[in-house]
Amino acid sequence: MENQIRKNIEQNIQDTIESQCAKYEIKKISPHLHQSLKEYSLRKGKRIRPLLFLFTYLGYSPKRLHKSFYNVSTAIEFLHNFMLIHDDIIDNSHLRRGKPTMHKLLENAAATDKKEELGHNLAIIAGDIIYAFAIEAFLALKEEPARKEKALRYFLETTTITALGELTDTLQGFAPLNKVKEEDVFLNYSLKTARYTFISPAVLGAILAGARAQEIQRLTTLCLEIGHAFQIQDDVIGIFGTEEKIGKSILSDLEESKKTLLVCHCFHHLGTKKKNVFTQIFNKEKKNLKDLQQIRDIFTDTGSLEYCVRQIETKFNQSLRLLEKTSMKKFSMDFIRKNFIQFFSQTQKIADQYNITVNLIQE
Amino acid sequence: MENQIRKNIEQNIQDTIESQCAKYEIKKISPHLHQSLKEYSLRKGKRIRPLLFLFTYLGYSPKRLHKSFYNVSTAIEFLHNFMLIHDDIIDNSHLRRGKPTMHKLLENAAATDKKEELGHNLAIIAGDIIYAFAIEAFLALKEEPARKEKALRYFLETTTITALGELTDTLQGFAPLNKVKEEDVFLNYSLKTARYTFISPAVLGAILAGARAQEIQRLTTLCLEIGHAFQIQDDVIGIFGTEEKIGKSILSDLEESKKTLLVCHCFHHLGTKKKNVFTQIFNKEKKNLKDLQQIRDIFTDTGSLEYCVRQIETKFNQSLRLLEKTSMKKFSMDFIRKNFIQFFSQTQKIADQYNITVNLIQE
Repeated sequence: MENQIRKNIEQNIQDTIESQCAKYEIKKISPHLHQSLKEYSLRKGKRIRPLLFLFTYLGYSPKRLHKSFYNVSTAIEFLHNFMLIHDDIIDNSHLRRGKPTMHKLLENAAATDKKEELGHNLAIIAGDIIYAFAIEAFLALKEEPARKEKALRYFLETTTITALGELTDTLQGFAPLNKVKEEDVFLNYSLKTARYTFISPAVLGAILAGARAQEIQRLTTLCLEIGHAFQIQDDVIGIFGTEEKIGKSILSDLEESKKTLLVCHCFHHLGTKKKNVFTQIFNKEKKNLKDLQQIRDIFTDTGSLEYCVRQIETKFNQSLRLLEKTSMKKFSMDFIRKNFIQFFSQTQKIADQYNITVNLIQE
Repeated sequence: MENQIRKNIEQNIQDTIESQCAKYEIKKISPHLHQSLKEYSLRKGKRIRPLLFLFTYLGYSPKRLHKSFYNVSTAIEFLHNFMLIHDDIIDNSHLRRGKPTMHKLLENAAATDKKEELGHNLAIIAGDIIYAFAIEAFLALKEEPARKEKALRYFLETTTITALGELTDTLQGFAPLNKVKEEDVFLNYSLKTARYTFISPAVLGAILAGARAQEIQRLTTLCLEIGHAFQIQDDVIGIFGTEEKIGKSILSDLEESKKTLLVCHCFHHLGTKKKNVFTQIFNKEKKNLKDLQQIRDIFTDTGSLEYCVRQIETKFNQSLRLLEKTSMKKFSMDFIRKNFIQFFSQTQKIADQYNITVNLIQE
């Protein structure tokens, strides 16, 4: 069943992007945009969000899936793409899923010597278009109107909350290190990552399956925990991972001077002198591999890497324990557990490498 | 009645922005964003789109207006704001409705020496948020589900079409002058202006009132004509108007080197030598009032100003003749006619000033 669902997810994404491009005659307006929208949407991704949505739905409503539910899974994936496109403009990132970001792709949409400006401007618009496609895809769902509207409303709330997360992230990016507290970082993770990556897909599945309010509350909590763990891991990998794994330069997270949990914990646990050394490297405009190694050493010396691994462990295990308590059908629960465990194999690997004992729940 | 409707439009915009900001605790996340969203949304505007929507609806369904229809008029105005915010980033404009553009407002959301970058980044997100607010406002409409969904779908299609117009506009901005033909300019006007400013508000009103397909077709045509006329006038005013009227620097349209109908007609009607003079001024990075005067003289010499006035006249009169043929109630038709006539008083003024005889249908 899982393989068939994965296949259907991909097929629906492909069909939707093609039919939408045809509907709006995008090829005629800009062949380059058409090509970029298609290539970007069809890049190999983990499809975490569509899978979580469909398996949660099936967990509460294990009848045969109506094919229009794949339009919602596409909507969820398109929302993700919209966020990535605008996020990459803001962070000025050049690689996404191992390929050029949308604004880099669109730099070549016209002959000009102001490539960067062209790429940025067109990518703002391309993001807007993908967002509209997301909601259009959602509307293709065949479902009883009141339930459908409730789900759509939740989906829209997700976009606002995620945008607010992106906003706090940007503001924190401009704030001096000593002004960013751990609770700010967690607020950011809740808004920016947990909601649209975990909570929203699961809750949308539950709403459409008619799950009870108490059940939706439990899902929200467990997805918030796993969302935090996921973002902490993402930030850890951004510093301690490898280029093949993250699909972008190993220096890129550091170059963005992101105020992650790792960074905040470290900063607040350094003496004044070391704080200055750290801040100096952290705020350098251009960083090199030597800087990365120095920063890695500081993160391990302060115990910040271990602290983050410990946070992941606690939140991950808590999330999996809550999952057991849901009234989801076993096959869905097993699938979700298996996937959560897979995501966090990277934390296990980094912990092993740095001799940190970690006990993540195993299958 | 008209005054009451105008009052309700303003009230609903205000209530919606306040309740949305409260719902998402935006003040807590960023007081500066909260203030900017409110100030920007409540700026005095002509409210062309909300009025056209409501009067078209009443024209086909003249019963007392359910108050939730004002949520749709707010959605239409928010969509407009979203477009303006992203458009102003792309054009790097500093003034909108006589006040700072959103990205200028947001430059002060945090203390930084990278003000411009901060403003641009936050305004991308602020636009995304207003867009999500627009669709949420739309969902507050109380209407029979099938009809409501049909209207929502049309609303979403409008956003994609307008974004594509913004895209063709941006691409034309980067294209050399000799590559842009009049038909490209008109395609741009159809996508970027006519659809969301005129066609969509009117058709949404008609869809929700249950008007027949033939009637919707007639509205579409008449709004396309008035939309073209409106955009041509806007471009003419951008060159021949006054700062008070346009709420921004009289040099700003020229500085953006927009390929308007005025510009295209002129360029294609100049001899090789004069073409070079024109192109040289047109492509200057920084322009001054002397450049503006020279460009104005060229536009009048080539007859391009007259050509544009003539185009406005034809399209405006055609639109008003079609309006008479709709089966709208008289009070709505009268209101729409009166407003269309008011919009075009500026063309009349410029035509008089340059001794161009123009016969726009009068009341």
